[in-house]
Amino acid sequence: MNAVEQSLSSASEPAEASARAPTAPATPTLPAQALGEGSGADRWLLSRLYAVLGSPAAQFAVRGSACVGAPQQEAVARVTFATRATLLSVLVDPALRFGDHYSNGSVTIDGDLISLLEVVYRAGIRGAPRSSLVRRTIAALQRPHANSLTGSRDNIHHHYDIGNEFYSLWLGSTMAYTCAYYPTPTATLDQAQVAKMDHVCRKLRLRPGETVVEAGCGWGTLAMHMARNYGVRVRAFNISQEQVAYARARAAREGLSGSIEYVQDDYRNITGQFDAFVSVGMLEHVGVPNYPQLGQVARRCLGGRGRGLIHSIGRNHPAPMQPWIERRIFPGAYPPSLGEMSRIFEPSNFSILDVENLRLHYAQTLRQWLALFESASERVRSMFDDKFVRMWRLYLAGSVAGFTTGTLQLFQVVFAPGESNDVPWTRAYLYEP
Amino acid sequence: MNAVEQSLSSASEPAEASARAPTAPATPTLPAQALGEGSGADRWLLSRLYAVLGSPAAQFAVRGSACVGAPQQEAVARVTFATRATLLSVLVDPALRFGDHYSNGSVTIDGDLISLLEVVYRAGIRGAPRSSLVRRTIAALQRPHANSLTGSRDNIHHHYDIGNEFYSLWLGSTMAYTCAYYPTPTATLDQAQVAKMDHVCRKLRLRPGETVVEAGCGWGTLAMHMARNYGVRVRAFNISQEQVAYARARAAREGLSGSIEYVQDDYRNITGQFDAFVSVGMLEHVGVPNYPQLGQVARRCLGGRGRGLIHSIGRNHPAPMQPWIERRIFPGAYPPSLGEMSRIFEPSNFSILDVENLRLHYAQTLRQWLALFESASERVRSMFDDKFVRMWRLYLAGSVAGFTTGTLQLFQVVFAPGESNDVPWTRAYLYEP
Repeated sequence: MNAVEQSLSSASEPAEASARAPTAPATPTLPAQALGEGSGADRWLLSRLYAVLGSPAAQFAVRGSACVGAPQQEAVARVTFATRATLLSVLVDPALRFGDHYSNGSVTIDGDLISLLEVVYRAGIRGAPRSSLVRRTIAALQRPHANSLTGSRDNIHHHYDIGNEFYSLWLGSTMAYTCAYYPTPTATLDQAQVAKMDHVCRKLRLRPGETVVEAGCGWGTLAMHMARNYGVRVRAFNISQEQVAYARARAAREGLSGSIEYVQDDYRNITGQFDAFVSVGMLEHVGVPNYPQLGQVARRCLGGRGRGLIHSIGRNHPAPMQPWIERRIFPGAYPPSLGEMSRIFEPSNFSILDVENLRLHYAQTLRQWLALFESASERVRSMFDDKFVRMWRLYLAGSVAGFTTGTLQLFQVVFAPGESNDVPWTRAYLYEP
Repeated sequence: MNAVEQSLSSASEPAEASARAPTAPATPTLPAQALGEGSGADRWLLSRLYAVLGSPAAQFAVRGSACVGAPQQEAVARVTFATRATLLSVLVDPALRFGDHYSNGSVTIDGDLISLLEVVYRAGIRGAPRSSLVRRTIAALQRPHANSLTGSRDNIHHHYDIGNEFYSLWLGSTMAYTCAYYPTPTATLDQAQVAKMDHVCRKLRLRPGETVVEAGCGWGTLAMHMARNYGVRVRAFNISQEQVAYARARAAREGLSGSIEYVQDDYRNITGQFDAFVSVGMLEHVGVPNYPQLGQVARRCLGGRGRGLIHSIGRNHPAPMQPWIERRIFPGAYPPSLGEMSRIFEPSNFSILDVENLRLHYAQTLRQWLALFESASERVRSMFDDKFVRMWRLYLAGSVAGFTTGTLQLFQVVFAPGESNDVPWTRAYLYEP
């Protein structure tokens, strides 16, 4: 037990457990399923974890040993640790190691993964004020990967260059890897992605013959949609080599090469004057210290006129990125609060004209991505391995839970140079048939 | 000339004039109308002022002496200083003393007052980066009046308790002293004020039987509109004695006393649980340091559910209040940037759901107020004096110019507790007939 206690006292999160012990009873409310040798120690450790997590409506077990947590009828799922060593490892840093152990199969889940993550996130949110010091300490130790010019290239390569074929299995026909917009909750994924692009174009009030610059263009779908349906010319920037190659080929096939130029370069190197500036799903990779520079780039592009739109995952208040996602899925990523986003606009005297929070639309988008991903999981397993499948399942399910529990937000911000009165009179035109 | 140079060198703003001299020629572009004795000195001083103001499309003259500025065909108006002493006084601190001298009649204006203020504001905005140090220094010397509990009472009394009859002359039948919402630009003032109240109520998704708390209720119009048309019960707070007395009497006349309680107290003393929290046009008087507390009050009122809306004049970036307005019209007032407003919501884990900028609607509202004010100017003069009429004319015209030039914004922010998913699916319902 000495080793156990040592590992607990040297970790930050379990220190929380002791702090909570008076209110969150360490005694499990459910009898252990099977009490093998040493199950008393497992039960004690599981109780620690249960308390650290804020007593969510779930059960936690060590295989063949103890089980603690919510009563059966209240629990949405059961988390089983393969061994005590797995449980100990998770206890040391749950936010990072739960994901790692789930990925390698030493943590398994019976029940609905999304529901499990929702109850864990909600319990964590309720308990948040007590653990803010701990979370700040952990956050300080887990500095995001810097988004310098070369840092950004490495970070983006890590996520977006793992293969266009992989993404095409579950993003739907649009290959849009950002929050869709569902005019009604029953819209299909493809319908909602097209509706999102129209929503963005209408917010930007694009007129035929105008020019648009896009910062972070993914697989180029929005640029093609704008050129095809709104008669504009687009210069679209992206540092992901695979995505730019895909976008160029697709635009050529669709006869749009004349009106779109895909540039494989960083948003900081954008030059030229445009009628509109748009960035959908890039800000998450920019980093708050670079926000004023992003604003300067938009200012340079628009001068004293024109319109802009930035679409990004966000937060209700500044908070570190979920560490497992930041380490394993999205290096360098950080979803900002609206207060942090204001550092893009304020130094460059942009007027913020309209902010829409589409949080629940991203939950719906992710649910539909996850369903397609599960349908294609055998194919994904054959392309990569089982660990990869489990990792991406956890990432997609965790993101659904982030948006449904309000841990994550989705902000669409429309802006214009402060001295320009070329602003819509009302927003009614956005909702005309 | 020694006294002149001394007063210039001891003032902050004229130091700017020298800094600009190389680009903004001191030589006037228009010949003086009448060159009396000492007109050379007047011309030199006027050129200084013209440069300080960023060379706006206007003319500046000392009565019976020199005139400088834009060519006749480009100038929107001429500003005439009664004496050199007046001009010197304005040069020392244009932002404060122009208003004072306009009010007492020693500055007169030929041409359109709003257009004059627009060209001055626009010229100032273009020149702003060069004068930021000067402006920061002036701002530091002109600290707004503190908004403590007693400070707020004094500040509010100064502006809102000068007589309900006075306000009734020009606010229209609704007595709503906040930005209206014009579904079309041709709506009348009263139509637009009613539309604004409906826009707010729809954003709050009020349902019959619900309870609403209003922080800063003016003459009580919104509370009455909500109770009458949306079937809700309202507790409405205001520290202005005159306004509360007016609101209570009006609600009694309209048979609404049973569903509205007007409380003469500070928003910080609000207690109780409500379905909705609304504040229209109070935030300008709260002061940024008190924003987290305002958020806590809203949190306490809503708990983990319900909806909120805050409507406020704002800025594109933090900037001091126009000093003359802060000193003479609105002591303690400060319009925040959206980044500053986020300090209300972020510490209390509110989700910002929707931000709408209605800047041009406030310009239109103010134009209509000003027209009614001018129609009633004889009556106002008889109630107060000529100085008061000129002062309020300048305040209303200056506010129009603030909104048309983008110096001022109008933000309507809808929010909800971060853990609540009781949020509208889209905003389309706001625009259904």
